[in-house]
Amino acid sequence: MTIVRHESSEILSDVVEANGFVFTAGVVADDPSEDAKGQTEQILKEIDRLLGLCGTDKSKIVSATIWVTDIRNRDQVNVAWRAWTGGKDLPARACVEAKLADPRLLVEIAVIAVK
Amino acid sequence: MTIVRHESSEILSDVVEANGFVFTAGVVADDPSEDAKGQTEQILKEIDRLLGLCGTDKSKIVSATIWVTDIRNRDQVNVAWRAWTGGKDLPARACVEAKLADPRLLVEIAVIAVK
Amino acid sequence: MTIVRHESSEILSDVVEANGFVFTAGVVADDPSEDAKGQTEQILKEIDRLLGLCGTDKSKIVSATIWVTDIRNRDQVNVAWRAWTGGKDLPARACVEAKLADPRLLVEIAVIAVK
Repeated sequence: MTIVRHESSEILSDVVEANGFVFTAGVVADDPSEDAKGQTEQILKEIDRLLGLCGTDKSKIVSATIWVTDIRNRDQVNVAWRAWTGGKDLPARACVEAKLADPRLLVEIAVIAVK
Repeated sequence: MTIVRHESSEILSDVVEANGFVFTAGVVADDPSEDAKGQTEQILKEIDRLLGLCGTDKSKIVSATIWVTDIRNRDQVNVAWRAWTGGKDLPARACVEAKLADPRLLVEIAVIAVK
Repeated sequence: MTIVRHESSEILSDVVEANGFVFTAGVVADDPSEDAKGQTEQILKEIDRLLGLCGTDKSKIVSATIWVTDIRNRDQVNVAWRAWTGGKDLPARACVEAKLADPRLLVEIAVIAVK
C-alpha cells in the first residue's frame, strides 16, 4: 500500500493517491474576483491539473462534492460544470450551501477519482 | 479498472461503481411536500434502489453524509434512519446543516458502499 | 470483501473498515465547553484512537472534511491541526461552515484513511 501526496502546503496536500483512488482537496478559485461561473471554471481547470499529477483525468471522477456560498449560484456553477464534463463520464455529485474560508470565494469543489 | 455509471442525467450520475466501491449522488426526496421524516423515508428507499442497481445493498454501506436544512430536523431524520437500518450494519456517518438546491427540500443523503 | 464496524451506537459506527480503506464518522468534542482549538484537539485525539482500532494511524489519512460552525474559527482549528499533523503526511482537506447537532459544538471532522 503506497500513498502519494502531491503539493503539500502547511496544512494539506492538494491531491492524494492511495489504493487506486485519488482524492483532491476542496479546490477554490485563485482569483476570487470572478463570479460563480468564472470561479467554477478556474476550479475545474485546477482539478484537471491535480488529476493529471496523479496520471488520471476527469473521465475517471467517481464522486464530486460542491459547496456554494449561495445556493442560488448553483445554476451558474452548472453552466461551467456542463461545459467541462461535456455530459460524459458524469460522477455522483452533491451540491450544498456553505460559507467558505474567504468571503469572496463562492464555490469549492472536491472530487474522488480512480486511476 | 472499470467504472460503471448508472442513470446519468445532464450533470451527474445517480450512482457510480469503481474499484469495489459504490458512490451515490446526494439523494433528495422526489416529493418535497413531505416533512423531514417522510423525505428521509423517500431518500432511503431510493438509496436502496440505487445500491440494488450496483448489486449491493444497505448492509454494505460504509459511510453516509446527511445534510439537513435545519439541524433541529435531525431527530426526525433519525426516526426514519433507525427504522431503515434496524440498528444493524451501521455506517460511519456525519450529519450537518446546509441549504439545499430547492427550499422545499429538507434532507439530502449521499452514501459510499462496497460491493 | 469484509467490512469491520467498530463501536456501533444506535445510529452509526464510529469507524468502518472495508477494501483497504477506513472511514470515520464525523467526530465531535466530548467536552463542548472548550473553544474551537480545544475541541479540535479533543477530536484529533479521538481520531487517533479510532484509527488505532483499525490498525492504522494519522500518517495514512488521505482525505479530511472539517465543518466549523463559524468559518472565523478556522484559524483556531488550524493551530490544533498543525500541531497534530506536524506538517507531515498531509491529507487532501476541505473545511466549510455548517451548523452541527448541538449548538455548543464548534467543529466536526471526518477522515478517510488507508490501512
